[in-house]
Amino acid sequence: MPRAVAGPEIERLIQLLARLPGLGPRSARRVALHLIKKREGLMAPLAAALTDALGKIVVCRTCGNVDVCDPCSICTDPTRDPLTLVVVADVSDLWALERAGVLNARYHVLGGVLSPLDGVGPEDLNLAALVDRVHQGPVAEVILALGATVDGQTTAHYVTDLLRDLPVKVTRLAQGVPVGGELDYLDEGTLSAAIRARTRM
Amino acid sequence: MPRAVAGPEIERLIQLLARLPGLGPRSARRVALHLIKKREGLMAPLAAALTDALGKIVVCRTCGNVDVCDPCSICTDPTRDPLTLVVVADVSDLWALERAGVLNARYHVLGGVLSPLDGVGPEDLNLAALVDRVHQGPVAEVILALGATVDGQTTAHYVTDLLRDLPVKVTRLAQGVPVGGELDYLDEGTLSAAIRARTRM
Repeated sequence: MPRAVAGPEIERLIQLLARLPGLGPRSARRVALHLIKKREGLMAPLAAALTDALGKIVVCRTCGNVDVCDPCSICTDPTRDPLTLVVVADVSDLWALERAGVLNARYHVLGGVLSPLDGVGPEDLNLAALVDRVHQGPVAEVILALGATVDGQTTAHYVTDLLRDLPVKVTRLAQGVPVGGELDYLDEGTLSAAIRARTRM
Repeated sequence: MPRAVAGPEIERLIQLLARLPGLGPRSARRVALHLIKKREGLMAPLAAALTDALGKIVVCRTCGNVDVCDPCSICTDPTRDPLTLVVVADVSDLWALERAGVLNARYHVLGGVLSPLDGVGPEDLNLAALVDRVHQGPVAEVILALGATVDGQTTAHYVTDLLRDLPVKVTRLAQGVPVGGELDYLDEGTLSAAIRARTRM
């Protein structure tokens, strides 16, 4: 236990900041000091934004997204294709797809992927609600936008099985060379997937 | 400008988090999502700690430290040696020295170092108050705990000049091989400083 160097209010702030992902004790102290120096310009707005978000943010009971309304603004957006459902592991994946801006569909957030090693089973994921949504329909296509990892692909196969008897097309993201990727830096798995899924020029 | 993927409350939180040192847009999103997931356990305490610190933290008008009282708890600590004053550039340096725990003295925070390139001149630093403190005394020794950089050493020489006519001993930190340092990784400047300041076994 290092010696406390500042008052309990500052130490408490540093301890909480150190629990944020990507920050350790040293960078948490740096952040705390930066906040203290910019009390009016950054610390006060951040405290207000946190309190504001805390009071307003809810999880959408339809899709699992986080927003300030339930159902969320994506679920209630009338301009989105209601026939396509994009299954993602996490809200961060939903955000990444929205940033890419190629889809105008609705989402279903599983809240993780199946992972026997981490003790994540089907009952820990938002799967029953997915089957319900597809069942109540109409949903024409479920796009499994899950990572190309062992756990991600296991989850994709599990979801495909769950939806097998429902009248819906289940697809997954293409695997291949990432845009800007150099061939000699890619692993063999990606290269063989890219060759198997080669397309005509 | 990337497409906003979440409501304005979440986007505002991400924008503010991205202004913290060491965080960029991507890691700010990750932190925001982590906070949203741990609303009760982390987001609420962090909002409370920020609001608490915001209302309480003040800059000590004697030494420039940040604390919840003015004068700060170090300046009013009766167990500290009142005859030794440690001059540091920043509160983070004060914290580093306190963590090391080798000194039991009082501090004087300059608020930076002289840096002509960054437009920092003597009038931007907390120098007049330092001369006043030494003048009003009694202070027997001023330890210049400034970085071994060009700007740090320029500042050390400037402060030494300022205090030249006052009855006080001015010292600076030793330069040499850092503890755990391998010789072949050290720059020539450090090596020649360590050789010049060599001590008898």
